[in-house]
Amino acid sequence: MNDEEDLLAANAAYYEAFRTAKFAEMCRIWAEDGVSCVHPGWPALVGRDAVIESYRKILANPNPEWIDPHDAHVLVSGDEGRVLCIEIVAGTLALAATNWFRRVGGRWRMVHHHASPIAAAMVEETAPRGRLN
Amino acid sequence: MNDEEDLLAANAAYYEAFRTAKFAEMCRIWAEDGVSCVHPGWPALVGRDAVIESYRKILANPNPEWIDPHDAHVLVSGDEGRVLCIEIVAGTLALAATNWFRRVGGRWRMVHHHASPIAAAMVEETAPRGRLN
Repeated sequence: MNDEEDLLAANAAYYEAFRTAKFAEMCRIWAEDGVSCVHPGWPALVGRDAVIESYRKILANPNPEWIDPHDAHVLVSGDEGRVLCIEIVAGTLALAATNWFRRVGGRWRMVHHHASPIAAAMVEETAPRGRLN
Repeated sequence: MNDEEDLLAANAAYYEAFRTAKFAEMCRIWAEDGVSCVHPGWPALVGRDAVIESYRKILANPNPEWIDPHDAHVLVSGDEGRVLCIEIVAGTLALAATNWFRRVGGRWRMVHHHASPIAAAMVEETAPRGRLN
């Protein structure tokens, strides 16, 4: 696989870990060092301990949200790669996500996630261009 | 200056360009290649043309918002650096911002910006820890 395919696979693995609430897999997806995360509506969490703890709590939810990534754009620069996508949560709510990966030991690992709600007007504007379907 | 100071200066320059509505300066702050941006409530813009055009429109606003960055955290890895901060817009609204820079030709240039509203409950929770003051 090339970098772009690898990054899309890493991105899909992130959402799969979410969907299946696999905390150990989520820990494996995140890099060991230099990580940060902005969950929707939250200020930034900086450092692996804070980030991993947030996922431990989120994945412990007995009724997890179904999150589906759409419309992925991949940008690669050396050992840095990011996937920008739209998360459809529970089939309706649209979030814009930045998923940033770093190649560490030959494997793309997440170093930053930032997700934020897309305003309804923007969703309607983007939908006809096929962003959400 | 060390990398951390340089990145804080680059971050400050971004908000200064906003505050003074200097479009040419904003163009200089952004890298030439591999850029993307998620404005609050928007889906991702990918590519310099789309990103720069969005700032042209935003900075053309005759009544620009006063945006003040607070509580900056800097993470550096080689030629990649990011500043995570809280933007206080017009003195009240709090946004979480990811400002990602890449060292190009010895200068840190912005390659990604993602800003999103912080829920009021989170602002109240973070305020006593000194994040907003």
